Amino acid sequence: MAESPAGATHQTRGEAETEFARIVAFTDGVMAIAITLLVLNLELPDVTDSRVTGELLSLWPAFVAYAISFVVIGRFWLGHHAFFGSLKGFSRHLMTVNLLYLSLIVLIPFTTDVLDGYGSVPVGPILYSVVIAGASGVAWWMNRHALQQNLVQPEDVPRISRAAAARGLVPTAIFVASIPFALVFPSWTPIFWGVALLTAGRLDARASG
Amino acid sequence: MAESPAGATHQTRGEAETEFARIVAFTDGVMAIAITLLVLNLELPDVTDSRVTGELLSLWPAFVAYAISFVVIGRFWLGHHAFFGSLKGFSRHLMTVNLLYLSLIVLIPFTTDVLDGYGSVPVGPILYSVVIAGASGVAWWMNRHALQQNLVQPEDVPRISRAAAARGLVPTAIFVASIPFALVFPSWTPIFWGVALLTAGRLDARASG
Amino acid sequence: MAESPAGATHQTRGEAETEFARIVAFTDGVMAIAITLLVLNLELPDVTDSRVTGELLSLWPAFVAYAISFVVIGRFWLGHHAFFGSLKGFSRHLMTVNLLYLSLIVLIPFTTDVLDGYGSVPVGPILYSVVIAGASGVAWWMNRHALQQNLVQPEDVPRISRAAAARGLVPTAIFVASIPFALVFPSWTPIFWGVALLTAGRLDARASG
Amino acid sequence: MAESPAGATHQTRGEAETEFARIVAFTDGVMAIAITLLVLNLELPDVTDSRVTGELLSLWPAFVAYAISFVVIGRFWLGHHAFFGSLKGFSRHLMTVNLLYLSLIVLIPFTTDVLDGYGSVPVGPILYSVVIAGASGVAWWMNRHALQQNLVQPEDVPRISRAAAARGLVPTAIFVASIPFALVFPSWTPIFWGVALLTAGRLDARASG
Repeated sequence: MAESPAGATHQTRGEAETEFARIVAFTDGVMAIAITLLVLNLELPDVTDSRVTGELLSLWPAFVAYAISFVVIGRFWLGHHAFFGSLKGFSRHLMTVNLLYLSLIVLIPFTTDVLDGYGSVPVGPILYSVVIAGASGVAWWMNRHALQQNLVQPEDVPRISRAAAARGLVPTAIFVASIPFALVFPSWTPIFWGVALLTAGRLDARASG
Repeated sequence: MAESPAGATHQTRGEAETEFARIVAFTDGVMAIAITLLVLNLELPDVTDSRVTGELLSLWPAFVAYAISFVVIGRFWLGHHAFFGSLKGFSRHLMTVNLLYLSLIVLIPFTTDVLDGYGSVPVGPILYSVVIAGASGVAWWMNRHALQQNLVQPEDVPRISRAAAARGLVPTAIFVASIPFALVFPSWTPIFWGVALLTAGRLDARASG
Repeated sequence: MAESPAGATHQTRGEAETEFARIVAFTDGVMAIAITLLVLNLELPDVTDSRVTGELLSLWPAFVAYAISFVVIGRFWLGHHAFFGSLKGFSRHLMTVNLLYLSLIVLIPFTTDVLDGYGSVPVGPILYSVVIAGASGVAWWMNRHALQQNLVQPEDVPRISRAAAARGLVPTAIFVASIPFALVFPSWTPIFWGVALLTAGRLDARASG
Repeated sequence: MAESPAGATHQTRGEAETEFARIVAFTDGVMAIAITLLVLNLELPDVTDSRVTGELLSLWPAFVAYAISFVVIGRFWLGHHAFFGSLKGFSRHLMTVNLLYLSLIVLIPFTTDVLDGYGSVPVGPILYSVVIAGASGVAWWMNRHALQQNLVQPEDVPRISRAAAARGLVPTAIFVASIPFALVFPSWTPIFWGVALLTAGRLDARASG
């Protein structure tokens, strides 16, 4: 795992375009499957015809949870997409960290199910927050590593530096901060996330405007 | 999300072929998984050997629902395929709308299951219609956006303009129109869809013939 | 769907390499998911620790069914791979037929589950045979269409002609022939398939040797 | 299946880049799905709100099993990635063996579920060991075949020779050796795997340092 200082384990993108494409394809595959598995959380119990409309309407929290997690995984994918598009090379270390990142993304359908079923007890939103904070933190770590190891195309360095903060550190902080909040007001935690993320996005847009 | 008038967030396809390929691959992955998950709706209850043939035959509505949704997702995929094949560039906005589109496609295995289980109550075909009308509407929106933002290769503009109507507006209108129909004759709604779509296809073929 | 005699709906591979790659990627995605979903048929009932070894051993027909269907989908994929590798162009018609082909492949995890659970009643092996005969028949149809429409690279024409017979017609005939067999000896039908396929393979190897 | 001595069934990578890319894409697809299906083993029983935290905490062995198998499939993928990246050609035989390899990888979500549910009886860790030893053995077989058939790029021969031992033979030996161990101390078998793999990794790093 240790890398030689001379960067012997680094490959430039030109040298290894096929391998680069393959890492990206594997990542996209895993994220595409994780986002699609969200639909398995929508389940209608066997009921009589006369009760099915009511049952479907009572599924609304599951639809909300589906929508939230679709947006969450979608944004992770957009961020990963922008990050990998900026790389001029990659390292074995980056591939390993990318797998760690994916292992957290793959948990999202499960944490979505728990959030949907147990959103009014602290453990539902806390488990969700831990996984999202973890994935955001690992995304930040990948951004920092690529910047420090000089794996980012020069013209993309400012953009990736900002993305490391905006898409890595800020969501990590928001989801960590939501954990004590969830202990007191579990049912309101999704509102907390929404307000905090929108505020952060607005501040970021103003700062970079 | 706001785009600069000068199109700073647009990328031409040549500049960003890898990223373009990746959006397409992610979309294809999600649609491939959604179409394959349809098979999970085919489920045989545990029965004795002597009753299995009868049980399988009584699954025929599930096979019909499988076939309908396979055709539906298949046609969405063919349409998306033709649309993306005509692009000379893309925008961040298009990527976001594409995710919205996918979030509706991914719901189809669920709405298929509901249609199969509760096709004789209005909510079954209505839920199905809402999702298909939504996905068709978003497909239309993507086509319009690409035409207006000059993202379509010049030689493909007439084809995409027609596709926006034929594959976007027309199915949206048909599935919206089927909602009041389903309130009165839920079980006949699939027939309504079939007749309307075939008629529309014939008119379109005559108009363009 | 009708194609102009002049082949206006045909595209050569060079003209549309991206679209070609996308059809292949979508097909591969669907087949990869279908082959992986086979594992969902392996299910261990909740039992006490002392009974789990016996339960696992009694799952052997499910493992056999898993192995058979893995080989079946694997061979379909190898055949599709060889066929698409020989194309110099494709048609809209071919894309539609390819979707029909996929809709049969996607059924295999379901028919495998039925074969595993009800292999000793005719309906289990018959349902399996119908789907495999259908997929083989559609594969043959795709091969014929490509040969007739001049979509195959000249140097591959003899190979694809032979493949149309060996991988299309022969398995179709074998699985159709196994249907009356299954009505009388359902449990022996997998043996029938194995013997017939091995014999056909040997005759084919001798004929082409 | 028999190959002519002159290597008539071998294709160089240049001749058949599309086909090569497709084998890789199919493999990546299957491995991406298998790694993502691991999340389906995490299931929370329906409980009252007051008991959900306890239930989630009692799921820790399932999380550990998830993490182990994510690392296992991830490492198989990294190894496959490095191996295929070194090839200058491939054979029909290699494609068939690759399918056998995949059929073992796809079993991992199932064996993970059994390991999680029945880790304290020998059959849980033994089934897991058999599948991992099998997949490692097949990986070794693919490496040997490619080296003997001269399918590896000359500059990669030493690396692949070492990988055949380190990633093929050594894990095969470790997981085979763990089978008698599991008969006596089933619950400790994951510790056995971890200690043996880390020790082997350290020895390998020293030998190649």
